[in-house]
Amino acid sequence: MAGQEIEDLVKYLARLPGLGPRSARRAVLQLMRRRETLLDPLSDALQAARDNIKTCSSCGTIDTRDPCTICMDPRRDESVICVVEDVGDLWALERAQAMKGRYHVLGGCLSALDGVGPEELNMSALRSRCAKPEVSEIIIATNATVEGQTTAHYIMDMLDDTPLKVTRLAHGVPVGGELDYLDDGTLIAAMKSRR
Amino acid sequence: MAGQEIEDLVKYLARLPGLGPRSARRAVLQLMRRRETLLDPLSDALQAARDNIKTCSSCGTIDTRDPCTICMDPRRDESVICVVEDVGDLWALERAQAMKGRYHVLGGCLSALDGVGPEELNMSALRSRCAKPEVSEIIIATNATVEGQTTAHYIMDMLDDTPLKVTRLAHGVPVGGELDYLDDGTLIAAMKSRR
Repeated sequence: MAGQEIEDLVKYLARLPGLGPRSARRAVLQLMRRRETLLDPLSDALQAARDNIKTCSSCGTIDTRDPCTICMDPRRDESVICVVEDVGDLWALERAQAMKGRYHVLGGCLSALDGVGPEELNMSALRSRCAKPEVSEIIIATNATVEGQTTAHYIMDMLDDTPLKVTRLAHGVPVGGELDYLDDGTLIAAMKSRR
Repeated sequence: MAGQEIEDLVKYLARLPGLGPRSARRAVLQLMRRRETLLDPLSDALQAARDNIKTCSSCGTIDTRDPCTICMDPRRDESVICVVEDVGDLWALERAQAMKGRYHVLGGCLSALDGVGPEELNMSALRSRCAKPEVSEIIIATNATVEGQTTAHYIMDMLDDTPLKVTRLAHGVPVGGELDYLDDGTLIAAMKSRR
């Protein structure tokens, strides 16, 4: 159909979540049509990401600095650490501006089925961060899935012998949500935690 | 949320067709998680595309060679030229292996609304290719839209004074299509061209 370079580009773009072979071909055509405004900046941005992006040695998020922007920000409350499963969860909380403290990215959640134990996650670093004198609260913000809840319980057990305040995100009705469309588990949780 | 490099990458990925800001963020996370298998090869493929991809000076398609692979292929029938609007249309015909001749990519179609006249399209090159002695048939494969049909009529008028055989793609029922779901225009065309 065209040169090997184009076939390769389609192949790798099709591996991105949200794109398949057909939409990857459309993306390549768009890239070729808009070289200055799309192909060149995207290629530069990928190259820059490849060269500069590191995993923060303290919290485990990805950033262009190590320690990351959040860990180095003096305006953030260093007494609170919010534990999340993934970088995407951290980004979601940051977009919502829901957290003013630091984060800790586990890199997944405990899963017996997938063979993910505490050693595979960023757990020992969390333990040593929790031992620091300035830390007073741990907010566990793992997902509300079975694996996420298991991970939350594991962390609570692990921190049981520390004087830290350990909290979890509230369950309840999403803001703007209609009761009729909610599952029973959420409704029961919302009723139990009524204020 | 993270470094400027990551924000840039999200911004440019979100401009690809089929991706929005949310799916671009998911794509970036995937790229970061799979550096060796995704980020590095995609970055290399984009760089190679940027360095090597040219527009064929004969037919107007994109390829890594100029003249392109199709124009240089001696096994292809050089007496037939198939006129398409876009490189995507050429790729579609190539995937279907529906054409054994050469192509000519117009780069769009005539559109009074968008101010696209014959000068904006690859028309004069088509005219000079049609004057070559080895060419005997022109297949007009523009889209079955109003603009595509206008463009087809324009090309037929343009080639009226040549001895070339000018044909167009047949209209009819798509293979595997059900009559009940087809529009009236297609049904009328299929009935008219019955064989």
